[in-house]
Amino acid sequence: MSQSLLERQDQDGVARLTLARPHAYNSLSLELMQALHAELDRIADDISIRCVVIRGAGKGFCAGHDLKQMLGEGEEAYYRCTFETCSKLMQRIVSLPVPVIAQVHGVATAAGCQLVASADLAVAAEDTRFATPGVNIGLFCSTPMVALSRAVQPKHAMELLLTGDLIDAERALAMGLINQAVPGDALEASVTVLAEKIASKSRKALQIGKQAFYRQREMSLADAYAYCSEVMVGNMLTDDAQEGIDAFINKRAPQWQHR
Amino acid sequence: MSQSLLERQDQDGVARLTLARPHAYNSLSLELMQALHAELDRIADDISIRCVVIRGAGKGFCAGHDLKQMLGEGEEAYYRCTFETCSKLMQRIVSLPVPVIAQVHGVATAAGCQLVASADLAVAAEDTRFATPGVNIGLFCSTPMVALSRAVQPKHAMELLLTGDLIDAERALAMGLINQAVPGDALEASVTVLAEKIASKSRKALQIGKQAFYRQREMSLADAYAYCSEVMVGNMLTDDAQEGIDAFINKRAPQWQHR
Amino acid sequence: MSQSLLERQDQDGVARLTLARPHAYNSLSLELMQALHAELDRIADDISIRCVVIRGAGKGFCAGHDLKQMLGEGEEAYYRCTFETCSKLMQRIVSLPVPVIAQVHGVATAAGCQLVASADLAVAAEDTRFATPGVNIGLFCSTPMVALSRAVQPKHAMELLLTGDLIDAERALAMGLINQAVPGDALEASVTVLAEKIASKSRKALQIGKQAFYRQREMSLADAYAYCSEVMVGNMLTDDAQEGIDAFINKRAPQWQHR
Repeated sequence: MSQSLLERQDQDGVARLTLARPHAYNSLSLELMQALHAELDRIADDISIRCVVIRGAGKGFCAGHDLKQMLGEGEEAYYRCTFETCSKLMQRIVSLPVPVIAQVHGVATAAGCQLVASADLAVAAEDTRFATPGVNIGLFCSTPMVALSRAVQPKHAMELLLTGDLIDAERALAMGLINQAVPGDALEASVTVLAEKIASKSRKALQIGKQAFYRQREMSLADAYAYCSEVMVGNMLTDDAQEGIDAFINKRAPQWQHR
Repeated sequence: MSQSLLERQDQDGVARLTLARPHAYNSLSLELMQALHAELDRIADDISIRCVVIRGAGKGFCAGHDLKQMLGEGEEAYYRCTFETCSKLMQRIVSLPVPVIAQVHGVATAAGCQLVASADLAVAAEDTRFATPGVNIGLFCSTPMVALSRAVQPKHAMELLLTGDLIDAERALAMGLINQAVPGDALEASVTVLAEKIASKSRKALQIGKQAFYRQREMSLADAYAYCSEVMVGNMLTDDAQEGIDAFINKRAPQWQHR
Repeated sequence: MSQSLLERQDQDGVARLTLARPHAYNSLSLELMQALHAELDRIADDISIRCVVIRGAGKGFCAGHDLKQMLGEGEEAYYRCTFETCSKLMQRIVSLPVPVIAQVHGVATAAGCQLVASADLAVAAEDTRFATPGVNIGLFCSTPMVALSRAVQPKHAMELLLTGDLIDAERALAMGLINQAVPGDALEASVTVLAEKIASKSRKALQIGKQAFYRQREMSLADAYAYCSEVMVGNMLTDDAQEGIDAFINKRAPQWQHR
């Protein structure tokens, strides 16, 4: 991990990853995407972490890809590398064994909006603006739309994609793109409350549930039930479920094996 | 049907099924799930019924599985039986030829929240609380999430699943988990208005439509249109559609063959 | 195109198609559906058009199929022709290379509600009423539900389908069925602002994006990313993307090849 592109701070089971290209609104250069992906890989194997927060340094969360870098390279192979790297990064967020919260402020546009849509949960400052403005430069936000169209209803996704307009946090909340819109000076504290709550759970249970969530979503109802029934049987047999249920019945706090 | 676990009252084409384990917040013991499934099977063949209401006796709607029973048994085969029985029950609600309304009050948690998500429609008292709290006891609500993730948007489902927090009826309404939130003393009357409205329709039309709804949902757009076009042709050829259209054109009330 | 059934006016890259059977609430007779489909085919090949608006003449947007015509014909082959023609028309809206906005006023019921659900975007007058009332005449709105159940959440779709009740524009907005509800005397102007904004974009980018939107929606997450990454590579290599990015970096207005 390059200290200059991405910063990581761990506390109480929460890993905070800060996109650190504030001079460029944390736009996702190839190097930053690779650094973020590599850090997520490390977190996947780090049993001390039970929740990840992704946030941005400076005035905004993330303004998408680095257009100057892309146009400067100007070759098909480079474009392909960029979009494949980005697509793998977004899928790494989904496949991560622990939940990911997007802590959003300022702007979240194009691939920055995709980061928000790809996270399991998102909390934004009230004055945040969201957009998928690629259509304004002749480059439709087709990869951001993969995440966006799975996070919000189709007419809402199309509104963002076809107009390129900025929407505010209130509308993003109504669309279901984010879970909370809070005053800017309460953003850090609100995310901490949410992240620490999740980090207080069993890592094993979080991992089982998050993985099953995304897998069952792509199945028919019958297949999803057959699959998730077996997931729950496996979950019941874990130390943490046996401990959790016993603790619940006996009205005491559980002691997780998998913290 | 055991009178002590599940009560049924029929009136004006509406079957009201009352979960009757009020001492245990109507938690879904194996016996209660089997009784409810068996009663739904009977209703499927009972042409006098055109709408089903599921409600709970006592202080709450349903608090999920019976954890004491589950931990007491403590064997993999028993867990499997529980989750498979539950999954089949929820799919029986979906496959039932007539619509199902959840009449919700007090609490609807875990598999109780899944019952709400699985029903075609849901009306709740304003002071109802909803949650999928399995994560708090190390047992992620993976089977409830099959229904929940098909009823609400993914960030809303994840919020419930990852935090285990209770939400109120206002938020459940905004999420689309329920259709109406009404004052507690208006719950019975509101559900009756809705149920009797549905029960005034042709049973044949309700059956054709409900079955097609869930089947076409899992198809591509092209396949869904091909399938539903044929469904409509078949529906047009029924006595009730011919009668309904004639009644509409001639401004009189229809007389259904399939009441 | 029959002038008496469907009118077309082009201005500034926007084609406005007006359903013109006001005496019958613009109900979709076989001839009107064929005329609309044929006009959409012409627009697909007309590179001067970058946005389509569909609206209705007279007191309402569209009241669905022409029941008198259907019952008058009274044969299975005729019913099949009607529903297949309608289903192909709705899919033509989805497959059209340019975005379609529904401009809705008065009533949008049955296949008229399906038109709204099938459009990429929808703007309605505040006093518009929406319904899928087929169930009231014994003919469940099974083909409208293909579009409706892909536009709104399942409990909202079921509420419309099972009750047949009219909902107002405020509720349609909350459901995500429409993008905006505006005062009736502001409807024309609001749609014009939206349509002209979209028509100011590159036709090539709109075409790439709209096509990819509906295709990727039916894929798994991994397939959708693989597909859309390639779509973006292809889009980057277009004249318009190169021009758009250069214009953005150099802070000037882009000049599209594909207007």
